[in-house]
Amino acid sequence: MTQAPPKALAFDVFGTVVDWRSSIAAAAAPVLAAAGRGDIDAFAFTDAWRARYIVGMRAFGESGRGFVKLDVLHREMLDAVLDELGLDLGEGERQALVMGWHRLDPWPDSVEGLTRLKQRFPIVTCSNGHIALMVNMARHAGLVWDAILGAEIAQAYKPLPAAYTATAAALDLAPHELCLVAAHHGDLAAARAAGLQCAFVHRPLEYGGAPAPDLRYEQEWEYRATSLIDLAGKLGC
Amino acid sequence: MTQAPPKALAFDVFGTVVDWRSSIAAAAAPVLAAAGRGDIDAFAFTDAWRARYIVGMRAFGESGRGFVKLDVLHREMLDAVLDELGLDLGEGERQALVMGWHRLDPWPDSVEGLTRLKQRFPIVTCSNGHIALMVNMARHAGLVWDAILGAEIAQAYKPLPAAYTATAAALDLAPHELCLVAAHHGDLAAARAAGLQCAFVHRPLEYGGAPAPDLRYEQEWEYRATSLIDLAGKLGC
Repeated sequence: MTQAPPKALAFDVFGTVVDWRSSIAAAAAPVLAAAGRGDIDAFAFTDAWRARYIVGMRAFGESGRGFVKLDVLHREMLDAVLDELGLDLGEGERQALVMGWHRLDPWPDSVEGLTRLKQRFPIVTCSNGHIALMVNMARHAGLVWDAILGAEIAQAYKPLPAAYTATAAALDLAPHELCLVAAHHGDLAAARAAGLQCAFVHRPLEYGGAPAPDLRYEQEWEYRATSLIDLAGKLGC
Repeated sequence: MTQAPPKALAFDVFGTVVDWRSSIAAAAAPVLAAAGRGDIDAFAFTDAWRARYIVGMRAFGESGRGFVKLDVLHREMLDAVLDELGLDLGEGERQALVMGWHRLDPWPDSVEGLTRLKQRFPIVTCSNGHIALMVNMARHAGLVWDAILGAEIAQAYKPLPAAYTATAAALDLAPHELCLVAAHHGDLAAARAAGLQCAFVHRPLEYGGAPAPDLRYEQEWEYRATSLIDLAGKLGC
């Protein structure tokens, strides 16, 4: 590889650094049980919620709707899923489920991997999660970010190019000096189109072993790793 | 005091957390000497530069000029100081002096104080320094911020109210739930006018023992401390 190494690393977070599926399912299970709907599988409920997110983020960018924090969109998507299930949760339960996305647990390698990577590189978020969510999650999970960048500072959701280029610009970097680290080929493809370097981290358990929905975007990325600890080794940290 | 304690702490940085005067003077002294102007006292040079900043920040807010990063303003102020001194430094020297503001040393209590405060409170910057500057400084000085907020995310410089209220809003807080920590009465007065709680940290050496230029703004603040370690104790950390 002849390309110069990146000057900083920007991380996708949901799925790449934290295990949203196990964390949200664990939060949802008692809520579903208390509502007398123990028949609904908490993982299936979580997958249905997240599926709306993936579609919703792409649709949001094309809608022309003004930027709103991810809590607002998570709530709209939750309400739609609950309608679909015919499940009428109270306001408190709905808010608690939305706030569950602020307290996701890291993958087992994330804290050590990020801590090692930070010794050499500034590490920032380039997530669709807003600043308050990312701050709460970092404090919950022990993620040592140098800065919370991404959608809220860009006022644009990934995969819009501005989400990536605004993150680079906030660090006084050209796009090619920043590397996006993500477990999602679709995210990386959009980052590459915006000029960033790309590091793929394989997270085969993100969908509980089911195939990821964005395999069609797979390319040969600048870096490829099986964990953030593996990535640290490959980047000489 | 009957007011509820804050939910997060936002910090002024230049002078409150880091000792800009000693750091910039140390960076300037060899540059002045190499230019054959060892007759110029490096502290006097630094004070002249900083004096333009204090005036410049208030003037910027009233000027209607679009937001630019602090590096741009530091450079304009440096060029004006050099003109005044009849000192024609090269481009490289000017850029290096501006970048000196990215590598300021902390006061002796800052790292321990912030680390203790972070155990209980989210700690964020509410500085006029831009994101890249704050990230570089935090990595240089070991400052464990939860997020870099303040002027750049607000697109407005303190003491404009938006710099404070945008910092609270980014944390999903009402202004009165956020406490500004600063060594400057003028900064605190503007934060209070915007609805924030205020903590004053006394930094008698910020101007080398000379009186601060904003003593006229002094009020009775919610908290008052002699160091960030002292503040941690007073906030129960």
